[in-house]
Parts: sequence; C-alpha cells; structure tokens
Amino acid sequence: MTETNAVLIGKKPIMNYVLACITTFHGGAKEVSIKARGRAISRAIDVAEVVRHRFLPDVKIKSIGIGTDQFLPQDEGDQATNVSTIEIKLIR
Amino acid sequence: MTETNAVLIGKKPIMNYVLACITTFHGGAKEVSIKARGRAISRAIDVAEVVRHRFLPDVKIKSIGIGTDQFLPQDEGDQATNVSTIEIKLIR
Repeated sequence: MTETNAVLIGKKPIMNYVLACITTFHGGAKEVSIKARGRAISRAIDVAEVVRHRFLPDVKIKSIGIGTDQFLPQDEGDQATNVSTIEIKLIR
Repeated sequence: MTETNAVLIGKKPIMNYVLACITTFHGGAKEVSIKARGRAISRAIDVAEVVRHRFLPDVKIKSIGIGTDQFLPQDEGDQATNVSTIEIKLIR
C-alpha cells in the first residue's frame, strides 16, 4: 500500500496550502492528495492549479474524485446534512 | 463529433440546475456536462451528487476536469485575474 500525503483545505490563504503541497513534493513525495469539503472545494482547485501552473510544471493530475459526506443530526427530528467533497490527486 | 449538453452553474438554487440535468437526460441525452467557475464550483459538485444519488442512480461520472480561465485587465497596469473552472461530465 502506498502512503499518500494529504493536504486538507480550510479557510487559510491559498498560498499556505500551495506551500504545503510544494514542501511535500520537495520532501520526496511522489503523490499529494488535496482534499476539501463544501465551500472550500473551489479553493482546492485553485491550489491544484497554482501548484501546477506556477510552481511545479512537472506535476500532473492523477485523478479527481467527488463524493458526499453525511452528517447525522445532533437532535432527533433534525435532518441529516449532506456535504460535497473533492479529492484531487497530484502526481510527480 | 458528439454534441454535449452543457449546464452552466450560476447563483440560482441548486435544484434548478439538478432539474436542468434531469430534463436533458429525459430528453434523450446520453451525456450532460456540468460547468462552473470560481465559487460556483462547489455547487457544481452538489448538483452532480444530487442528480446521481437522489434522482438518476444509473448516471455515472465520465470525467472531471479542472482548469484556469484568465481574465485580461480592463485598464493597463492592472493584473490579469485567474479563475478556476471545473467540468463534470455525467453519462447515462
């Protein structure tokens, strides 16, 4: 089994995550997985595009997957909430 | 060349776009392409997930592509703006 380095996208400036990806590749990783949920998804794509086009032109997109995470309600009677997810695998 | 039906994601409620996809498939289309830019990207994934999981279980994701659109500056001296894009191809 190959270990994959994951970068989880949150609310920090995009460059923080870009740097995390670059550092991971420079540390010898062959693959970096960018993961995000909900509104952070568009930022995940920004990160992948900046890494590829501005910093590491030899990095390619291996795969892009989307999915749904379900959050169960805290109280009975509430509805479960669905949140979309994305995983972008970059490979060098 | 196969003609592809595109659904462009904007700011309307997600269900509007879900309905557009379903209608296109019911009209006999074999393939629907969901396209979005910038912050609408996470909504594009929501649309694809709702279509697949809630309405049309026989619809599969054919491919997901990401890219960058560049907007040239209106005035000289301004910098060009980059906006990320996504295209999700659904197939039946």
